[in-house]
Amino acid sequence: MSEPVVIGVDVGATKILVGAVTRDGKILASRRSLIDGRSKTTTVQSIEDAITEFMNAWNRPRPLAMGIGLVGQIDPPAGLWLEAMNLPIKQPVPLGQQLSDRFGIPIALDNDVHAAALAEMRWGMGTESADFIYLNVGTGISAGLVLDGRLVRGTQNYAGELGHMVVQPHGPLCPCGRRGCVEPIASGGGMLARVEEQLIHFPDSALHRQEKALTTQSIFSAADSGDTLAVRISSDAIQALSIALVNLVNLLNPEWIIYGGGTLSDGWLIERVRANVETQPLLMTRQSLKGILPSRLKPEQVGLLGAACLAWNLGELE
Amino acid sequence: MSEPVVIGVDVGATKILVGAVTRDGKILASRRSLIDGRSKTTTVQSIEDAITEFMNAWNRPRPLAMGIGLVGQIDPPAGLWLEAMNLPIKQPVPLGQQLSDRFGIPIALDNDVHAAALAEMRWGMGTESADFIYLNVGTGISAGLVLDGRLVRGTQNYAGELGHMVVQPHGPLCPCGRRGCVEPIASGGGMLARVEEQLIHFPDSALHRQEKALTTQSIFSAADSGDTLAVRISSDAIQALSIALVNLVNLLNPEWIIYGGGTLSDGWLIERVRANVETQPLLMTRQSLKGILPSRLKPEQVGLLGAACLAWNLGELE
Repeated sequence: MSEPVVIGVDVGATKILVGAVTRDGKILASRRSLIDGRSKTTTVQSIEDAITEFMNAWNRPRPLAMGIGLVGQIDPPAGLWLEAMNLPIKQPVPLGQQLSDRFGIPIALDNDVHAAALAEMRWGMGTESADFIYLNVGTGISAGLVLDGRLVRGTQNYAGELGHMVVQPHGPLCPCGRRGCVEPIASGGGMLARVEEQLIHFPDSALHRQEKALTTQSIFSAADSGDTLAVRISSDAIQALSIALVNLVNLLNPEWIIYGGGTLSDGWLIERVRANVETQPLLMTRQSLKGILPSRLKPEQVGLLGAACLAWNLGELE
Repeated sequence: MSEPVVIGVDVGATKILVGAVTRDGKILASRRSLIDGRSKTTTVQSIEDAITEFMNAWNRPRPLAMGIGLVGQIDPPAGLWLEAMNLPIKQPVPLGQQLSDRFGIPIALDNDVHAAALAEMRWGMGTESADFIYLNVGTGISAGLVLDGRLVRGTQNYAGELGHMVVQPHGPLCPCGRRGCVEPIASGGGMLARVEEQLIHFPDSALHRQEKALTTQSIFSAADSGDTLAVRISSDAIQALSIALVNLVNLLNPEWIIYGGGTLSDGWLIERVRANVETQPLLMTRQSLKGILPSRLKPEQVGLLGAACLAWNLGELE
């Protein structure tokens, strides 16, 4: 009953998951809330409220620290949430200070992809390998780069933007301003947007006749039936993601690629990409790559575990 | 006179430079020889002879250690020269053991690009920054990735193969088997090969009328005069290298890009690439990038300094 815990707070674009996590990555309790994203104030208030409600219900030992994994750009040493695309955070928010004043325990912040990569280091592939890429393909595409046993952060913690690797210089315009970034071609969000754009030109496409909202799974399944639009969109995605990953293998010489994210969860896309990534890199980097595996951390837990990991790492640094 | 020194041995595809280097990067003496690259045996013998001749002439304090920077693939902990494209090394050579038996001092091996990046860390930009890319564009293209103050080696020391990043999926076939790698489009060797291939289709090109052997400088100068072939080759190079570097900036969030190599030495190509690399990355990674600078290490010395650096690093590890 007195096993030490930290609090993890996984803040996505629409919801918050708060939980208590032990040192060996067991989630003892957790609670999900929605974000009121109308303004910066309501967003931050939603996070505070979600934590407060969890803490009020938590009657076991006082947590040692709290880690917050957030969408967007973070300055971890300063405890600042700098910016988020999908939430109204356009100016830096001193979230670390605010939450430590409010809850009286040490707070660590980082972005959700770095946090997930840290969880993968502590409780997943990192227990076996010092050099792996944690690939996430969902609404967007990003990568946690773990090299020599350390998460690559770059000079200001922005490393990992694999989604904005150009793989098709004459490809579609990306919101970032360049043409042919891998994200709008091969992410779930990108594929769905491309289908929406192009559907009008394919009156016979099976993708018109979806009972529920369109998903990448329905695109893949239509492609299997030979639907022209679905074949085009999914082939482009396979090619784009293959190029990006082979580039990454040649550049960084990882031992493993570990993947997560909704777009890869049914295996359709990653299995087709795998054939290329296992055969196309340079001989030496190809021979070093032991495999491409799904994360052993549960997809619905990795965000919370990542956030908790920030807190555990903080404890060990001090 | 008794300042401690190490020996650096810079082994290129055609020549060897041996020198004595102090802890602060001063070259006290050096000597250049040719490689007899007819076979593995003559190649290794050339290296031994070059070192022996230097050592025989060296009448000052006994060197503490020796570092060898080599073209090709190296296993530094095992002291193995695994493979080289431009020399007849196709099976691993236990060069570390052979040279330490022969000369009786500790030996460190690494590839030339890693060695140069280590020299840049010790005596160049590394004195100011922990996150930079050391870009080399000459016969080929490669990158030393210095992140969080450490050289990224990857799981088997092959990290840095920027030359085999695909930037143009329908581009020319690369010897590595993929299409549109940046190296055959934007390296000096690649540009010269493309001119040779295409010259027959451009009977009026000024590149037919070169007095000496064709160089990238003559391509750039012909491009300035509006020569159609030269404009095409150099524009492709600008676009390809720009895409590769912007991809790298987005992925790794470096603070600086430091460059070396003959193809960039006159500034023509890198100045045109710079405009893109300073404007096209994501806002956050763009703002973190402080600049793109030539290495402060002299181009003709960086290989030797890199090799010496391997020896100094060895000394400090032990």
